[in-house]
Amino acid sequence: MDTLVMDDVLAQVRLALERDDLAGAAAVIEALQPADQADLVEELADADQVALFSHLHPADLADVMEEMEDGDAASLAELLPVADLAGILDEMEADEAADVLGDLSPELAAEALLEMEEAEDVLPLLRYPDDTAGGLMTPAVVTLRRGWRAKKALQELRLAEPAADSVYYLFVTDTEGILKGVVGLRDLVVASPETTIEAMMDPNVVSVPVAADQEVCARTLSRYGFLALPVVDEISRLVGVITADDLIEVAEDEATEDMYRMVGITGEEQVWGPLRASVLKRLPWLAINMVTLFVAITVVDLFEPVIAGMVILAVFLPLVSGEGGNAGSQTTTVIVRGIALGEVDEHNGLRMLNKEFAAALINGTIIGFGTGLAIYIWKGEWVIALAVTLAMILNFLMAALAGVLVPLGLKAVKVDPALASAAFVTGITDTMGFLFFLGIATLLMAAAVAYAGA
Amino acid sequence: MDTLVMDDVLAQVRLALERDDLAGAAAVIEALQPADQADLVEELADADQVALFSHLHPADLADVMEEMEDGDAASLAELLPVADLAGILDEMEADEAADVLGDLSPELAAEALLEMEEAEDVLPLLRYPDDTAGGLMTPAVVTLRRGWRAKKALQELRLAEPAADSVYYLFVTDTEGILKGVVGLRDLVVASPETTIEAMMDPNVVSVPVAADQEVCARTLSRYGFLALPVVDEISRLVGVITADDLIEVAEDEATEDMYRMVGITGEEQVWGPLRASVLKRLPWLAINMVTLFVAITVVDLFEPVIAGMVILAVFLPLVSGEGGNAGSQTTTVIVRGIALGEVDEHNGLRMLNKEFAAALINGTIIGFGTGLAIYIWKGEWVIALAVTLAMILNFLMAALAGVLVPLGLKAVKVDPALASAAFVTGITDTMGFLFFLGIATLLMAAAVAYAGA
Repeated sequence: MDTLVMDDVLAQVRLALERDDLAGAAAVIEALQPADQADLVEELADADQVALFSHLHPADLADVMEEMEDGDAASLAELLPVADLAGILDEMEADEAADVLGDLSPELAAEALLEMEEAEDVLPLLRYPDDTAGGLMTPAVVTLRRGWRAKKALQELRLAEPAADSVYYLFVTDTEGILKGVVGLRDLVVASPETTIEAMMDPNVVSVPVAADQEVCARTLSRYGFLALPVVDEISRLVGVITADDLIEVAEDEATEDMYRMVGITGEEQVWGPLRASVLKRLPWLAINMVTLFVAITVVDLFEPVIAGMVILAVFLPLVSGEGGNAGSQTTTVIVRGIALGEVDEHNGLRMLNKEFAAALINGTIIGFGTGLAIYIWKGEWVIALAVTLAMILNFLMAALAGVLVPLGLKAVKVDPALASAAFVTGITDTMGFLFFLGIATLLMAAAVAYAGA
Repeated sequence: MDTLVMDDVLAQVRLALERDDLAGAAAVIEALQPADQADLVEELADADQVALFSHLHPADLADVMEEMEDGDAASLAELLPVADLAGILDEMEADEAADVLGDLSPELAAEALLEMEEAEDVLPLLRYPDDTAGGLMTPAVVTLRRGWRAKKALQELRLAEPAADSVYYLFVTDTEGILKGVVGLRDLVVASPETTIEAMMDPNVVSVPVAADQEVCARTLSRYGFLALPVVDEISRLVGVITADDLIEVAEDEATEDMYRMVGITGEEQVWGPLRASVLKRLPWLAINMVTLFVAITVVDLFEPVIAGMVILAVFLPLVSGEGGNAGSQTTTVIVRGIALGEVDEHNGLRMLNKEFAAALINGTIIGFGTGLAIYIWKGEWVIALAVTLAMILNFLMAALAGVLVPLGLKAVKVDPALASAAFVTGITDTMGFLFFLGIATLLMAAAVAYAGA
């Protein structure tokens, strides 16, 4: 729903609430999709949320709470009577209910679990972090046996009346619960009633371990084009199912996190979140970059006497380092994203160096000569023009080297390359940019003096 | 499959090919998942690919070709006999077949379509760009009518024997083809045989227009937690269905594209793609940034006499601009990503300015005073220390202003904010950083001289 329509609906709800017409407000909300309902409810004051919730059905409330941001859902949950909360949690998908329970105080979570009817579905999920396969999965409610016929499987399905999207792929297990195969619900429906599950199942089933990172789950599901992914424990027993819709959000969240980390925003800064988070999550990287900048300017400091002898060098100082930084962030981004998508790792990463060196040599030469020419035309100073050209080519090569090796090195020591690569690579291209430019200019000036003296 | 296992399997296939044991090579490949098959085939020489393809079943070949990169699939398609190609395209999902046909020469595409049996499914899709709902969808093969009972619907489903995952949601249309509702296959299976579709369908169905951008499709599906999304034409007729697994890839591809664009890599550079693409796709932005760097250094050039009078200024030149650039890219990234995810637009974007200004003031003050103190301790130059502190606070505010307004402005004039924001924002923080620092230092020095003279 777009922002303008949303504002309109919100105004209707607010009007109804001002008139104490809770039923009217509830009716407006019930006509919306859960995701829109959640957005709307999040805009209301706490007291209004609680009042409204008493006028909505638990199933609707469960849908709304599933769609709310985790923190918001937990805040609301704390305001509700425990019996109502338990009723809502019973109606939620087990993985979502576990997320809400995980965000509550341990006392309240325990009280709610005691009142819940479906506590046994949710309890096992509380063990797993939100961002792992275990935290994303819904317990598998229907499993088939190889010996069953299609008819019997459909009967079992009707009996179980599974509530979730997770039944579009039906997983086949043995008596120990070990995952043996998968049958699409569609195949089961169109099969002749006497076909055995063994005959129609695909035994070559791809699964993820319960501790797998959510990024790995998203990549696996997307790679193989599935709509659901089985989750298994250490001995290959089926413990749950992850559906594709949950993983689109994972792919987007992981990408956002990486993009933020590339510019030094740590943690999950919400675009509409509080100021305090924006300050605290950005400050550490700004401080670290200040340190790398200080390292870089100590090089300039060493050359102060040279600059004093030719002040115009100062004008061109930012060129080599700045452009080296740009080239470095291009390489770094390609490698960091490649690592995140599972395309680049320690085994193949060094193969990237050749290509990146070649690209750096070509781009560095083109940009370096263009810049040198522009400087010569502008200032007529061949020492500076030549120093910039040579320094830029060298700094592009340095940028390629750092842009490949820094992320791979960080990955090898288990630091997230997205978080720390940019600071290191820019620090290196800044420092080396100043060193190459001022060093080469010093040598050229000395050579010019020697030549003039000869 | 991880890289090492893959290398091992590849070695087996190569060995079989060297021995001209095509059947053996095909057997190794047939045991793999399609995505792994595609990766493996892409590693082989063209001639080996064609030879192998004659030993695989068209259905397997279709799976492999669906998983290959679009360009690679088209190159291979051009090498195959047209009759074989048509057979493979018939077995592919319609949207994937359309993508391959769209990448072929018009003559070859026409020849293949003439030989195909399922051409009528694919033809309508050729009209839509790859990155729109129309390009992603599979034509809806099974639609239900409101008056049908569950029993009849299941019979129709068995008759149609639909091939794709797209049937897990069954869409209900009227006789004109207008989309009226949706029924989950699961609900249909567990319903009593006499229930009408009307009674079990959800009439509140969310759809996307055929021309909708793929990013909008991914966001819609993820927001509402569906596994499939109906696509409608201008008059709400159902024309196709998009499944969630295709959209995970979309979410990842769009995020990759935005990350690349943020550092000035245009188009879809493949991490393992050719050198030529890496050079050409990065060079334009490097050139544009060189221009913005030249604009910035003209400011330094104006202050050359001031620097000549106090050479140590040159040492601290990179600090204010560099750190302003870091602060600017943090704000820019939050806004650009917010725009991409549909959380920030022209209506609400200006509300971000207050928060960003406040964060800039706090972070700028902390970093500015810390840096000023460090400089004073290091060099004992209060003019430089104070100039850096004040200039940094001002430049952080400038970074916040540019970081919010530049992406919103680019969006307003229909330029992708991801592509152009960084160059503009860095250009502004570089230029203003030099101006603030050197300007304030000049004023402070003049004030010091005046004070000493008084």
